[in-house]
Amino acid sequence: MPRVTLLSDFGTRDGYVGVMKGVLATRDPGVLLDDIAHDIPRGDIRKAARVLGRVWRAYPEGTVHLVVVDPGVGTRRRGLALAHSGHFFVAPDNGVLTPILDPGGAWEAVELTRPPPLPGMRSRTFHGRDLFAPAAALLATGHSLRELGPPLRDPLRLSLPQLPAEPGTLTGEVVEVDRFGNLATSLNPRDVEASGGLILEGMEIPFRATYGQVAPGEPVVVINSDGLVEVAVRDGSAEARLGLGPGSPLRIREE
Amino acid sequence: MPRVTLLSDFGTRDGYVGVMKGVLATRDPGVLLDDIAHDIPRGDIRKAARVLGRVWRAYPEGTVHLVVVDPGVGTRRRGLALAHSGHFFVAPDNGVLTPILDPGGAWEAVELTRPPPLPGMRSRTFHGRDLFAPAAALLATGHSLRELGPPLRDPLRLSLPQLPAEPGTLTGEVVEVDRFGNLATSLNPRDVEASGGLILEGMEIPFRATYGQVAPGEPVVVINSDGLVEVAVRDGSAEARLGLGPGSPLRIREE
Amino acid sequence: MPRVTLLSDFGTRDGYVGVMKGVLATRDPGVLLDDIAHDIPRGDIRKAARVLGRVWRAYPEGTVHLVVVDPGVGTRRRGLALAHSGHFFVAPDNGVLTPILDPGGAWEAVELTRPPPLPGMRSRTFHGRDLFAPAAALLATGHSLRELGPPLRDPLRLSLPQLPAEPGTLTGEVVEVDRFGNLATSLNPRDVEASGGLILEGMEIPFRATYGQVAPGEPVVVINSDGLVEVAVRDGSAEARLGLGPGSPLRIREE
Repeated sequence: MPRVTLLSDFGTRDGYVGVMKGVLATRDPGVLLDDIAHDIPRGDIRKAARVLGRVWRAYPEGTVHLVVVDPGVGTRRRGLALAHSGHFFVAPDNGVLTPILDPGGAWEAVELTRPPPLPGMRSRTFHGRDLFAPAAALLATGHSLRELGPPLRDPLRLSLPQLPAEPGTLTGEVVEVDRFGNLATSLNPRDVEASGGLILEGMEIPFRATYGQVAPGEPVVVINSDGLVEVAVRDGSAEARLGLGPGSPLRIREE
Repeated sequence: MPRVTLLSDFGTRDGYVGVMKGVLATRDPGVLLDDIAHDIPRGDIRKAARVLGRVWRAYPEGTVHLVVVDPGVGTRRRGLALAHSGHFFVAPDNGVLTPILDPGGAWEAVELTRPPPLPGMRSRTFHGRDLFAPAAALLATGHSLRELGPPLRDPLRLSLPQLPAEPGTLTGEVVEVDRFGNLATSLNPRDVEASGGLILEGMEIPFRATYGQVAPGEPVVVINSDGLVEVAVRDGSAEARLGLGPGSPLRIREE
Repeated sequence: MPRVTLLSDFGTRDGYVGVMKGVLATRDPGVLLDDIAHDIPRGDIRKAARVLGRVWRAYPEGTVHLVVVDPGVGTRRRGLALAHSGHFFVAPDNGVLTPILDPGGAWEAVELTRPPPLPGMRSRTFHGRDLFAPAAALLATGHSLRELGPPLRDPLRLSLPQLPAEPGTLTGEVVEVDRFGNLATSLNPRDVEASGGLILEGMEIPFRATYGQVAPGEPVVVINSDGLVEVAVRDGSAEARLGLGPGSPLRIREE
C-alpha cells in the first residue's frame, strides 16, 4: 500500500494542497496521504529542509516524500526526484533536499523532464500540481526514478551549519526555533555535557538530562530528540524568555 | 477503496472535524479521509465554493466531497446531495456547490430527508455530524443518490462573477486572495495578453508568462494555475503591496 | 484495517507529528492515520480532554486514539495505555483521559513500561515518538494491552465540572469556548429549558431550540451537539459579545 507524505508552504485555506492530493488519488486510487506540514513559513527552504530531515527516516522504505516549498516557481530552477535508502523524494531543486544529501550515503537523482500532466492541467505557476504530484504518483505506483528524467549529479545544496559542530568548537548558533520556543543549536553535545552548560550574557544555563530537572520557568540545556543541544525553558518559551532566534550566537561555558 | 474529502470552516481545535471523521469511519471502516481545508473563514461560502471548484476535478470519479460551511445551521435551509461527472457532493443548500452547478453539464441532486443518524447523536446544531457525514458515508459505501431523499431541482446558486469575463470586457475585479497575497481576477486572459497588462492608479503592471520574468518585489500579471488572470508580486504579496482585496476594481491597459 | 487518531499540541510546522506518523507507518504499513487536532493550546490538558471526550465515541471499536499533550515530558509522570468499550487510548498519565474514565464503565489500563523504541530513536524529550507512537502501533497491530506493561489502577483524573450539573443547580460556569466563540456550560439542560433562559448581568438570554430562532447578532441559549447548555450569538461570537471565557460564572433565570 503506497504512502505519500506532503510537506509545503501552501497553507490549506486555498485548496492547493487538496489539488495535489486529488492528482495523487487520481493516479493511484489506494494511495495513503499523510500531511506533514503545510504551514512552513512562505518560501522558507531551510525550515522545510529541517522538518524533512527530521521526518523522513521515521517512515518506512518505499515512502514517497513530496516537498513543495518553491519560491523559484516560474524560474528555470529544475525539478528533482531522488532515491535514498529505499525512500523517494520529489521536490524543486532549491536545496530543500540538503538533509537527504548531506550525511553521504548512496543517493541517485534525476531531473524531472518527463512529467505526465493531466489533460488540461498545466501552468507555469503550479508545479506542485502539474509536475511534482504526478512524479510522486509515478514513484508511488512502482515506476523507477529513471523513467522520470535523466540523471542529475549536482542537486543544489544549502550551506547549513554542521550539526552538531566538531568537538572542541566552543561557539555555535541557534539553528531552529520550534512551536514551543525551544532553541535547537549547532553546539556539540559532548562538549556541552563536559562543560556543564552555556554562558549567555553572563548567565549560566545548566545542562540537565531532562526539562523536569529545573524549576518551572527556568532555562535549561538538554539534548533534544534530534540529538542536538537545545536551550529550553521548562513550561515556557526560551525564544521569548531569552530573546534568541535563528542565527543567535551561543557559547559553551568554559570549565 | 472509497475516498471522502473534507472541507469546512470548523477549524480542528474543537474536534468537530474529528467527530465527522469518526462517523465516516464507523460506517465505512476502510474509508480514506483527505482533509482539504478546515480554516475557511467562518461562514465564508464564497471562499469555500472557490476552493471546492479548484479541488474537485483533480480527484478521481467516485470521490465523495463533504463540504460543511453552514452559517444557516438551525434555520430551515435544506441539506443537499449532488452527483456530477461521477463525483458526489454533500453540503448545505446555501450556494457552496455553485461551481459544480454553474458550468452546466449533467447534475442530479436530492434533498437530504432521510439522514441515518447514529443512535443518540442528533442535534439541531451539528448537521455535519448528524446529517452530512452520514449521507457522505452512504454514498461512499455505494448507496445511490436517490436513497438519500427526493429530487431537488433548484439548488441555491450564488451570483459569482463570470470567470473569466467575456472577451472585450476591459474592467473586472479581484475575486480571490490566496495565502501568498496573489490576486485572482475576473479579467479575460486573452484581452490581458493582447493589451500587455493592467493599469492600476496610473501604474502599468506588465503581463508576463511567469513570475520569474520580473525582478523580485515587482508586480506582474500572469495566467494562474486556474486559468485566471492573476496580479502577483514576485517573492512578495500583491495584496499588501497594492492594497487590493476581493471586489477591488481592475482595468485592462488599452492599447 | 487499523485506524489511529492523532491529537496533540505539537502544531504541524516542526514535523513532530510527522515523525509520529512515520513511526506508526513503519510498524504498520497499512495503518490509516486521522488527524484530530494538533493546535490544542500548549499544555492545555483540559481542552485536549474535552476534544477527546467529544471525538472518541464517534469512531468505531478497534480505533486507537493517540493523545500527546504532555507538559510533564521529562518528569516522572507515567505513560498510559487504556481500553474502554473496544477502543484503545495511549497518552501520558496526566488526566487527559479523564473523559474516558469518568462516566464509569469497564476500563482497563496499563503503565507503559515496555515501549519498543526504534533503534537510535530515543530521548527524554520526545515520548510521542519514542514511547506513545510505538505503543499505539502495537495496539493497532493486534497486540494486547497487557503486552505493554503492568496493570495501572489509579490513572490521574482531573477534577472537571460535572457535565451537566445535577438538576436544581441554578449556577454553573463556562467550560469551553469553541472556534466560533460559542460557550459550552455546566448548567443542567432541563433546568434551563424549564426556566426559559439565563440571566447575565441583568440581561435575559432566551432559551431556543436553534440559533435560527433569534435575529442575527442576538444572544441565545441552546442545547449544543454534545447535549450541553450553550450560550451563542447567531452569526457572531458569544465570547466576544458577552466577554465570557472558561470559568465565567452563569445563573439560570428563576421562574
